[in-house]
Amino acid sequence: MKNNHTSLGPKADKETVRRHNLSLVLRAVRDEGEATRAGVAARVGLTRAAVSSLVEQLLDSGFLSESGKTFSGQAGRPGTVLKVTRSGPAGIGVEINIDYVSVCVVDLSGTDRVRLTEHLDNRGAAPAEVLARGARIAARTLDSAAEQDLAPVGVQLALPGLVSGGTVRQAPNLGWNRVPAEELFAQALAEAQPVVPPLPVRSENEANLAALAELWFGGLGGIRSFLYLSGEIGVGGALVLDGELLRGANGFAGEIGHVVVDADGPLCRCGSRGCLEQYAGQSALLRGAGLDENAGVPGAAELEALARAGDKRAIAAIGEAGRMLGRVLSGAVNLFDPDAVVLGGIYRSLMPWLSPPADGELTDRVVSGLWPHDSGRLRASSSAGDAARGAAALVVRAVLADPVAYADRTSA
Amino acid sequence: MKNNHTSLGPKADKETVRRHNLSLVLRAVRDEGEATRAGVAARVGLTRAAVSSLVEQLLDSGFLSESGKTFSGQAGRPGTVLKVTRSGPAGIGVEINIDYVSVCVVDLSGTDRVRLTEHLDNRGAAPAEVLARGARIAARTLDSAAEQDLAPVGVQLALPGLVSGGTVRQAPNLGWNRVPAEELFAQALAEAQPVVPPLPVRSENEANLAALAELWFGGLGGIRSFLYLSGEIGVGGALVLDGELLRGANGFAGEIGHVVVDADGPLCRCGSRGCLEQYAGQSALLRGAGLDENAGVPGAAELEALARAGDKRAIAAIGEAGRMLGRVLSGAVNLFDPDAVVLGGIYRSLMPWLSPPADGELTDRVVSGLWPHDSGRLRASSSAGDAARGAAALVVRAVLADPVAYADRTSA
Repeated sequence: MKNNHTSLGPKADKETVRRHNLSLVLRAVRDEGEATRAGVAARVGLTRAAVSSLVEQLLDSGFLSESGKTFSGQAGRPGTVLKVTRSGPAGIGVEINIDYVSVCVVDLSGTDRVRLTEHLDNRGAAPAEVLARGARIAARTLDSAAEQDLAPVGVQLALPGLVSGGTVRQAPNLGWNRVPAEELFAQALAEAQPVVPPLPVRSENEANLAALAELWFGGLGGIRSFLYLSGEIGVGGALVLDGELLRGANGFAGEIGHVVVDADGPLCRCGSRGCLEQYAGQSALLRGAGLDENAGVPGAAELEALARAGDKRAIAAIGEAGRMLGRVLSGAVNLFDPDAVVLGGIYRSLMPWLSPPADGELTDRVVSGLWPHDSGRLRASSSAGDAARGAAALVVRAVLADPVAYADRTSA
Repeated sequence: MKNNHTSLGPKADKETVRRHNLSLVLRAVRDEGEATRAGVAARVGLTRAAVSSLVEQLLDSGFLSESGKTFSGQAGRPGTVLKVTRSGPAGIGVEINIDYVSVCVVDLSGTDRVRLTEHLDNRGAAPAEVLARGARIAARTLDSAAEQDLAPVGVQLALPGLVSGGTVRQAPNLGWNRVPAEELFAQALAEAQPVVPPLPVRSENEANLAALAELWFGGLGGIRSFLYLSGEIGVGGALVLDGELLRGANGFAGEIGHVVVDADGPLCRCGSRGCLEQYAGQSALLRGAGLDENAGVPGAAELEALARAGDKRAIAAIGEAGRMLGRVLSGAVNLFDPDAVVLGGIYRSLMPWLSPPADGELTDRVVSGLWPHDSGRLRASSSAGDAARGAAALVVRAVLADPVAYADRTSA
């Protein structure tokens, strides 16, 4: 039912149109990397004069920078080169996962400028302490950001659970229930390193943010609709449809790890039985291969090494997980009709053994017939598809969508 | 990522804004039922003068009508009452299902004005013959429409299968494969009753259209995101998210009937094994209750009667189907996070026995905890939720979204 006429909203006034056009020009330059005013005008369909006026405002506010360099290869007067500023507005992404915290600062172009990752076990501590730990790690990146003339405008948390309205409703693998994560993190950040005015803190499910990073930076080509799975201790999932994250009515969509495989199967941390996580999560994989199911990241690496060395038990364990993944994925594909399924986390390195059985299930069970054997629709995520980067880029996207709203926060 | 600034499109010019505002005013009157110019102005946020000019154009083009009646209860000058015209543009919906064809003509207000249903078995005949049958039935409604001063502007087909780009890719229960349904129907309609210029014919999955009818006319209250299931010979499904149909990357989303319940279960017509349809479709229900599985509509009525009479076998069969439905629904809810699940078709009258076990599975297996026992989120569809009406209303929605495009087709 979507159409351009109704999406205009009740009333479009001049100021709204100018704010929209500022965003349009800024995003056009970001997409091109380097652009002239004439190039932008051609791309966005505004007059050269209108674009020049908009560009001036964006230069004045510090969103664009201009180099002496000119493009003379094109017809008409040579124009100076515009770029999105490498200093100024930045986003901070903080992924707090089960056995690590990773913080990423990106600039307006989406480039990863600062990265700090600490491996630690977040399962033992209280939620407030885990969030304070994350805030301290994030605070350490603020100095690096300042040294690079970056001015963070906000923090986006990426959390392994059901996140909505600033609260983690449930994160079974962390043992969290109704944790006001944004508030606790903001308090801890203010204590660790006061910023004036305080940085707004938002929160989102980590698989959702990893999927966005994959969409924005993963080289997916024309793929705009996909199902993203992140194999970790839990199995996270996210749905992207036509380039937009599908959050669901309450923000809880994408929980593919808790789709039932066998109604009478083993008890899951979520309270149900026989969830996919019990068959294709990291613990199930390690256990199936005869490894310590709590071995974490080193365990996943060992599993891969065993499979590479031809270990039959490891290969069988991965194959069985792939089959169960494929069954659940075929149902999800029948429901959602994506262009692709992207497997991230530990699945990335297990693809040679995981993918064939999963692909077989998709071939047999997807009713549209659009997933024949080796269709290439089941694929590994790129290295870009990480939640911290997606989180940081989400902050920056808000700036790109309405630069005027951030015009007073552009200098470090 | 959706925001009003980017959805404006590359460039909003004056003509676009006026077309948009014409639609806005027309839809405002449709939503109100009866409205004055002042009332519309207050509702849409435009000036009284602007609304008057837009209303004149809509009156001239025959989209609105004005009665002598005035509202004098409000402040200011009394205004004459505007209504969406009951004559003029109309939509024709044609549902061609496995054992019936139903044609519906609705006017601009969405009101059902003509209805013709024929019960017949469409499984034996060739696709072209079935579509020609549908076209002949539709042609019979054109005279009725003309007598009511309605001017159909298009036909929307509702078909029980995977429909995309005018073609039925697969309709397992009809035995159709790659049938160019729009083209065949348009040809047959031109033969049955030539209309100049020919009516455009569009096609869509029937469950999708039933879900839209439910959304638009079903009295769902604040529910804007739901999963719709239609229990028929097949089990159709549709996803509505935030008031929009989720069609998927290729138009094939919603195929919940082919989500696997038991990987080694009975062979399904789609080629896979153990699909939900094999456990909760009409045939499975009838067979489980000891009835003739091919008994069609009378069989479904008999099943209901047996359950009402307390027949243990019938109740057990419905309960088992409900349990299997609930398992698949819990996975779908974990993936999509809808506000509600709406059960239509034969499920509507089986709710007293179907709903409790399905509800139990949802309670146990939805990870968000938002589906506790008797949450009321699992509900029967209304009688309004039928595919033919949704189809006809979809035609009319296109008129409402851009009346200017239809200004030359408004008189019968």
